[in-house]
Amino acid sequence: MQAPARLELIALPGLPMVRPGDDLAALLAQALAGAGLELRAGDVLVLAQKIVSKAEGRLVRLAEVTPSADAMALAEETGKDPALVELILSESRRVVRRRPGVLIVEHRLGFIMANAGIDQSNVGEGMALLLPADPDTSAERLRAALGAPTGVGVVINDSFGRPWRRGTAGVAIGAAGLPALVDRRGEADLFGRPLQVTMIALADEIAATASLLMGPAAEGRPAVLVRGLSWSAPASPAATLIRPEEEDLFR
Amino acid sequence: MQAPARLELIALPGLPMVRPGDDLAALLAQALAGAGLELRAGDVLVLAQKIVSKAEGRLVRLAEVTPSADAMALAEETGKDPALVELILSESRRVVRRRPGVLIVEHRLGFIMANAGIDQSNVGEGMALLLPADPDTSAERLRAALGAPTGVGVVINDSFGRPWRRGTAGVAIGAAGLPALVDRRGEADLFGRPLQVTMIALADEIAATASLLMGPAAEGRPAVLVRGLSWSAPASPAATLIRPEEEDLFR
Repeated sequence: MQAPARLELIALPGLPMVRPGDDLAALLAQALAGAGLELRAGDVLVLAQKIVSKAEGRLVRLAEVTPSADAMALAEETGKDPALVELILSESRRVVRRRPGVLIVEHRLGFIMANAGIDQSNVGEGMALLLPADPDTSAERLRAALGAPTGVGVVINDSFGRPWRRGTAGVAIGAAGLPALVDRRGEADLFGRPLQVTMIALADEIAATASLLMGPAAEGRPAVLVRGLSWSAPASPAATLIRPEEEDLFR
Repeated sequence: MQAPARLELIALPGLPMVRPGDDLAALLAQALAGAGLELRAGDVLVLAQKIVSKAEGRLVRLAEVTPSADAMALAEETGKDPALVELILSESRRVVRRRPGVLIVEHRLGFIMANAGIDQSNVGEGMALLLPADPDTSAERLRAALGAPTGVGVVINDSFGRPWRRGTAGVAIGAAGLPALVDRRGEADLFGRPLQVTMIALADEIAATASLLMGPAAEGRPAVLVRGLSWSAPASPAATLIRPEEEDLFR
């Protein structure tokens, strides 16, 4: 990866509120064309999880969810809506932390996150929005549907809380067309010494960058074009950013 | 915080290799002027930890460090240089994880990080570079020395490994002139529902953004101007990003 000297970030104007069943690629193509933007090598289009999930129909009406006994017990323990807890459990491999007001799980996709990433902001009363079923595949499908040339990436981002640090930051949950993780092992520093930091979470840094423009609930600006990047490594999905438990130095 | 529709990122050209004792603010002012850039409201100047530490003379010659018995034992256990381990311990409150090749500590400033953030890339053979003594104060001092007007922030960034996710990402270790953490509690979503995500790690997202231009060892591009942000919350230092242990939902 050659770090760029300049980058431009553009929140796509003119994107309508996305609804279940919408052709998101078509809406994005319209917004790009309307802004006079044509995708080119070094562009990464970052999409808020929210609009990808909505287009994919991942909205659930909580009143239609029947909580299991496990969900009822966990809802009691955490003070959360039993239907919401049922959805969280259905999206998770295991509960990582539970306490009043808090439910951290390992999402079925491997993310360690609060509430399995289920979102109730900007989705309407009584509704809950699940993460896309397979965000890496969603990113790849959108990349293809946009007719993006080689050297154009798509990232789907979300805001995650982090251990040890306060506040949320943008994180990549899906990626296509770019190396989500850049491996610089074997490269040398300016003095010829092997680089100490050798794996860079490129897609996460891009996801955090786009968050600056989206705002916390991605209100009104859920698609951001990052223009001016370059990379030489082959594309790798956001799933490569998930650290296998046995490799985790911090646990 | 009003999220911007556009952002521009500019790696400052013409910054010389920083050496101990250099007047970093003067070098930055020269580089800004040379590039025809004048700091204005909404700008955040992001500086790699490396150049701040170097200017502050935080370079240590490992041959001049005498390892304690504790450091010798831990060096044996982790396979690291005893002098380096002595430096790591002297910069830390406690050891969080130790195993062959790995030493994660709680830095005296509260960061949970590998090797207490001590850097051996791009600093010369046999040398080690410590974090700035007080990065928030460094950021404030640089902000003042640059004569930055109100609405201009300075962030000092570094690359941290993260639990659960592979690769490093840029993180703010010092900040001045901007709210490192933005509190949106009490705000509503587009449907009038209270926002779910309410604390945004603004300085961390800015730090990650700048990392995209700096590259992994901040080679050659250790200062990045982020142009086009805006915020209304009062300034708060990067120390506010450190989550007190008792508040940590993930532990």
